[in-house]
Amino acid sequence: MSYEDLALHTDKYQINMMYAHWKNGTHNNIRVFEAFFRKNPFKSGYAVFAGLERIIRYLEHLHFTEEDIDYLRTQEERYEEGFLEELKNFKFTGELFSVKEGTIVFPNEPLIRVKCRVFEAHLLETALLNFMNYQTLIATKAARIRHVTPNDQLMEFGTRRAQEADAAIWGARAAYIAGFDATSNMRAGKLFGIPTKGTHAHAWVQDHDTEEEAFKRFAEALPDQSILLVDTYNTLKSGVPNAIKVGLKMKEAGKSLKGIRLDSGDLAYLSIQARKMLDKAGLTDVVIVASNDLDDDVITDLKAQGAKITSWGIGTQLITAADQPALGGVYKVVAKLEDGEYVPTIKISSNVEKITTPGYKKVYRIINAKGKAEADYIAMDNEVLPEKDIKLFDPVHTYKSKVVSSFTAEELLQPVYMEGKLVYELPKLEEIRRYHQEQLQLFWPQHLRRLNPQEYFVDLSVDVWKTKNDLLEKYSL
Amino acid sequence: MSYEDLALHTDKYQINMMYAHWKNGTHNNIRVFEAFFRKNPFKSGYAVFAGLERIIRYLEHLHFTEEDIDYLRTQEERYEEGFLEELKNFKFTGELFSVKEGTIVFPNEPLIRVKCRVFEAHLLETALLNFMNYQTLIATKAARIRHVTPNDQLMEFGTRRAQEADAAIWGARAAYIAGFDATSNMRAGKLFGIPTKGTHAHAWVQDHDTEEEAFKRFAEALPDQSILLVDTYNTLKSGVPNAIKVGLKMKEAGKSLKGIRLDSGDLAYLSIQARKMLDKAGLTDVVIVASNDLDDDVITDLKAQGAKITSWGIGTQLITAADQPALGGVYKVVAKLEDGEYVPTIKISSNVEKITTPGYKKVYRIINAKGKAEADYIAMDNEVLPEKDIKLFDPVHTYKSKVVSSFTAEELLQPVYMEGKLVYELPKLEEIRRYHQEQLQLFWPQHLRRLNPQEYFVDLSVDVWKTKNDLLEKYSL
Repeated sequence: MSYEDLALHTDKYQINMMYAHWKNGTHNNIRVFEAFFRKNPFKSGYAVFAGLERIIRYLEHLHFTEEDIDYLRTQEERYEEGFLEELKNFKFTGELFSVKEGTIVFPNEPLIRVKCRVFEAHLLETALLNFMNYQTLIATKAARIRHVTPNDQLMEFGTRRAQEADAAIWGARAAYIAGFDATSNMRAGKLFGIPTKGTHAHAWVQDHDTEEEAFKRFAEALPDQSILLVDTYNTLKSGVPNAIKVGLKMKEAGKSLKGIRLDSGDLAYLSIQARKMLDKAGLTDVVIVASNDLDDDVITDLKAQGAKITSWGIGTQLITAADQPALGGVYKVVAKLEDGEYVPTIKISSNVEKITTPGYKKVYRIINAKGKAEADYIAMDNEVLPEKDIKLFDPVHTYKSKVVSSFTAEELLQPVYMEGKLVYELPKLEEIRRYHQEQLQLFWPQHLRRLNPQEYFVDLSVDVWKTKNDLLEKYSL
Repeated sequence: MSYEDLALHTDKYQINMMYAHWKNGTHNNIRVFEAFFRKNPFKSGYAVFAGLERIIRYLEHLHFTEEDIDYLRTQEERYEEGFLEELKNFKFTGELFSVKEGTIVFPNEPLIRVKCRVFEAHLLETALLNFMNYQTLIATKAARIRHVTPNDQLMEFGTRRAQEADAAIWGARAAYIAGFDATSNMRAGKLFGIPTKGTHAHAWVQDHDTEEEAFKRFAEALPDQSILLVDTYNTLKSGVPNAIKVGLKMKEAGKSLKGIRLDSGDLAYLSIQARKMLDKAGLTDVVIVASNDLDDDVITDLKAQGAKITSWGIGTQLITAADQPALGGVYKVVAKLEDGEYVPTIKISSNVEKITTPGYKKVYRIINAKGKAEADYIAMDNEVLPEKDIKLFDPVHTYKSKVVSSFTAEELLQPVYMEGKLVYELPKLEEIRRYHQEQLQLFWPQHLRRLNPQEYFVDLSVDVWKTKNDLLEKYSL
């Protein structure tokens, strides 16, 4: 797999911005951009940040090939050769801070902060958003599914319905970060070390004269991985009885049938009946696996109806985040460096929620004496937090406030690139997965609830709040 | 961009099927598989087939690398070395027929037909479905958008919200096939020759002391591509008046402002007002471009309200097919070669719509004397159609039938691979795009309607119908 050649994984308007700045002689000006999203996906109370490893791989290989330059030379913009020369020497020379993968994050807080030449900042926008948006979306969806099945096995089975090949592997990785146990995608297994799992196809059964024969042969070929798909003809009349016959023979031979898989029909009813049949035959260890357009909603319902499923193969609904297939993450300029000072900039909009929070900023998680997160707190990069007693206030209804004493403040944005050099050690995937579980412990359950969660606040320091209001006033027409 | 190393772009159960067949000694048996979908996406009356070029590129490069083999050796299945040796020599040696890209297609007809060793057929399934499902989905969504804007410019602007990098380029290509005019994605432009378009960012405006200054500078840098984004501060009070000032100056200098772009607010109202202001200033040629979460529904509504927009930038809703982000395409075994005969196989299911149509089959489009498509017609591969007077009947309500005389029958499945060799000449993208437009002409408008379309029938030959019913009876329990 090649991570090279993604310099043109960008929108034309970024190239045109770069060109206009170059023509203007302003391309070396230093700007600060922030990536964030405005609303949690799926009406969730939070999101799970992911995408950083992909972003780092992208930045490490970021350069324009001869082919890229030749292609740009054909464009109707007729870019000057001096500009193309500039691109030939392009590399990322700036600073990038990011939230760690697996972190629980919230709307309107900076997740990635880039400080670099405006020339570079524009090129990066599209790719950074593309990577962050997709992986954060899938990690969040996966966390919601894990939330309703805390103790079951969860397997990502979505490749055939994924939106192309990249989505399949990066989606599998995002799901694993957020608590999935395995994927069916072999490439994700190879590239990221995620455990891979699989059963067998209907075609295997159809390829034998009888279902029993098909099961027997499969169990012979893969005795330690034998999960039998029981719905090719009739689940309860044929599939489960045949699986039991094979399971009993395996038992006699000192082996054991691993499981059966239901892939259609009424999963609640079928799993309850199948469980009874298996137990009656003494096959109490045989696991019931289910698949078929499952998601957190369906699983919640099936569990409420007493379904005897303890292993879930989740496809389409997870890998495409079908109930909301895009996270609307954006990337906005927040400050410009002028005469050694970071001057905050704002984008006004008639849609109030589209107004940006200006300034070169950082974000803290305020953790109380009980070890629980009270709020996130956005301050200017050069602000020093009070030693104790921090006042948190609602940025719209400012009379709503509270004081947290003896708090600890965890800085969420970590240095990843300094002066174009990677300074961040990529954690192992298992470590990210563990870190995500620790993150969940930080929050009160009401913020993590799947339906109607309690809002977790992202507050502004007085300095940030004032800066925003002053600029709003300045630009109000 | 590398198309190599996609051998593991598959589910583990495919590898396990291959292994079980190999252990069983049945891996060289010849089987016929068909890929099809069961339901049109978006309640559409049809879908637009796409994905074949990607599938061909995949097949041309399909082999297991040493790394792939090493990875497989680590798996808990403990695959035998003989099997891994077999994989080292793997290549596609079979036959593949496919519908051409850009073809209007319908549920339950074979879109891709693979005849090869069962060993190969299994490996291909996941990748073929992944490619066909995504691209067909996006081409169909794009066709629906083109349907409501027959004469406007349509630009694909979705990369930042696409589900990772592959989706961005293959989605852009699918949209172009179905009538989009351009994409913002530069990599798609480079790889496929799709025209690329772009405007400028809010950050450009924020980076200047005044909006007017920003517009002026941009128009100087890119005089022939000047589309000015007018909503950074206040569209009608500031953005449009400033764009007009710059437009008039350009006019004086013998240049012309190309357009303005609205990206927020009430697009109907703003475009009507902006049009008046531009016209009053004599800038009647300046185009109004709109973006902001648009799709066929929103465009239909905006047009009904008299919006003066003639160029549309479509992002999230298109590139993720947000109203239905997956096409449920499947790949099922339909026949096995036994003693020189193709024996039909069926998959039964308690969900009636999941029952497959057995047999080694082909599909015709029956076109009447007026040049309009009457129905698609699935026959066995060795069936000969009547010279004239073909009887079409409903496969469920068989009394519903009609006879079409003096018809022509177009075979939809074209040979792509024969004995593992590519025999299909990939059409140029422009040709596929043109072919898609011709395809639309074949159908009565009622089948192409966006809401409540009239069903277009896919009928079975008597032979296929009988084969299916006989097998259903045989397996009914």
